[in-house]
Amino acid sequence: MPLSSYRDFDAALAYAAGAVERTMDRLIPKAESGEARVFEAMRYSSLGGGKRLRAFFVLASATLFKVGALPAMRTASAIEFIHAYSLIHDDLPAMDDDDLRRGKPSCHKQFDEATAILAGDALQALAFEVLAHGDTHGDPGVRTLLVAELAKAAGAQGMVGGQMLDLLAETQGPDMSIGAITRLQRLKTGALISFSCTAGAILGKAAEPLRLALSAYAHDLGLAFQIVDDLLDVEGTAEELGKTPGKDIAAGKATFVSILGLERARAQARLLADQAAAHLEPFGPSAHLLKQAAEFVVSRRA
Amino acid sequence: MPLSSYRDFDAALAYAAGAVERTMDRLIPKAESGEARVFEAMRYSSLGGGKRLRAFFVLASATLFKVGALPAMRTASAIEFIHAYSLIHDDLPAMDDDDLRRGKPSCHKQFDEATAILAGDALQALAFEVLAHGDTHGDPGVRTLLVAELAKAAGAQGMVGGQMLDLLAETQGPDMSIGAITRLQRLKTGALISFSCTAGAILGKAAEPLRLALSAYAHDLGLAFQIVDDLLDVEGTAEELGKTPGKDIAAGKATFVSILGLERARAQARLLADQAAAHLEPFGPSAHLLKQAAEFVVSRRA
Repeated sequence: MPLSSYRDFDAALAYAAGAVERTMDRLIPKAESGEARVFEAMRYSSLGGGKRLRAFFVLASATLFKVGALPAMRTASAIEFIHAYSLIHDDLPAMDDDDLRRGKPSCHKQFDEATAILAGDALQALAFEVLAHGDTHGDPGVRTLLVAELAKAAGAQGMVGGQMLDLLAETQGPDMSIGAITRLQRLKTGALISFSCTAGAILGKAAEPLRLALSAYAHDLGLAFQIVDDLLDVEGTAEELGKTPGKDIAAGKATFVSILGLERARAQARLLADQAAAHLEPFGPSAHLLKQAAEFVVSRRA
Repeated sequence: MPLSSYRDFDAALAYAAGAVERTMDRLIPKAESGEARVFEAMRYSSLGGGKRLRAFFVLASATLFKVGALPAMRTASAIEFIHAYSLIHDDLPAMDDDDLRRGKPSCHKQFDEATAILAGDALQALAFEVLAHGDTHGDPGVRTLLVAELAKAAGAQGMVGGQMLDLLAETQGPDMSIGAITRLQRLKTGALISFSCTAGAILGKAAEPLRLALSAYAHDLGLAFQIVDDLLDVEGTAEELGKTPGKDIAAGKATFVSILGLERARAQARLLADQAAAHLEPFGPSAHLLKQAAEFVVSRRA
């Protein structure tokens, strides 16, 4: 049954994750020859796990505008390929140096550093190939707009810029202002979440006010998401998270929690999630999945 | 004066390199804030040098189909951003571990490894943003096709796949077959060169036989280019090359020269360049720049 028919959020999320995973599996080329190793690493790090929240945002926003299943699913796969690439490169020894990801050895531990660099590079290229490729989905004007928006969200004015700030923040220590850390996170995680939530509007050629409503939703939700990430880094266990907790404290890095404290950070996340949900007003009851997603983001344990 | 008016190849190459450099400079965003470091690294590694041969192939092939200057220049910039990103990542310690590039410290020596990884990632995203962005150039159908073709050429089925093979070849030692090394190089350097030479045909919506003629030209020229690279690695100096020579021999890697010997490698490069030029027949005298480019590729000293 289509995503829009689901009432229960957990079932909808599980359905979306399964469907996007199957699509991604089909979209990663099979190789028999020597370079098969890079395809294996791409599969290892992009398939078999994750909540697929970004894919869910694409698919759920697409239901608001009666977007076809195929273009929505390709766009959802593209954003998950970008997300997977960013995690591979983030985990590298020169970056966050993390050995554990989604409960498994991170890509460079399972393969090696060179393969991990290449697998990340190839996943980024694959994301744009999947978005642009013309055989299977619709209007080329929509597709170029998606490519341009995703490239901007993923690049130095978006995610990569945020990662750069994040690395510099480590040397800066815990004395960051709340404004500076908010900007960092808006770039690092917010830009891709914004793309995900507005992709449905681009695909559906939605009227400007509706696209802006989704953009405002994404803006608040992305920040709530990051604050909860910081909370989980303090409160979660490696088993729950599938990655090493306590890394930010160990690195002496400023986080929303280190600046606001646990109580105020929790309250702030709740406030932002409620604010996010309020932006969905123009869509009425049809936005019930995105509304529940806001609740999920603040109540999740991983 | 437009590129097509140049008779002298060296002047044409210098003109194209200057023009694409100015365009690239404009296309890399300026940043004042913390993440400025990643923009600096992007500029450091993508501006100020290089023959810009790939850009030249785009611009020269575009003259055959009366493509507008702006879309040709943006496409030329995109391919050079991809090329620059690939060199940054290639030079990383986990990859080729090279301290010198274009006569300067390589990106991770000048900045640091993390910044180099991020600068490469951001340059790849920028390439696709530049190709896809709709404000300035034409038909979105053409733009999606360019994005899809470049993404394929740059990804695991193209350049990145070739880099994976190249890394594996190091452990394999000098006993590679000529077939295996040809396939490796067709992926590693050939795929991007093919994109460059056929981009003009895509931009100009050329008839299929003309696009295929350029593709055949690129096929032979790409291989000639790589054989000459292997020759220069043996015969060139660090001063001429702006990078460390003799690395392949030191690593015990198979190259066209180690398999064929100097004499036969030289003869093979010459044969391929002549063959490449012959594919330009259907264009008559208007392809004089591409014809001279084939000559340049085998006679260059760096």
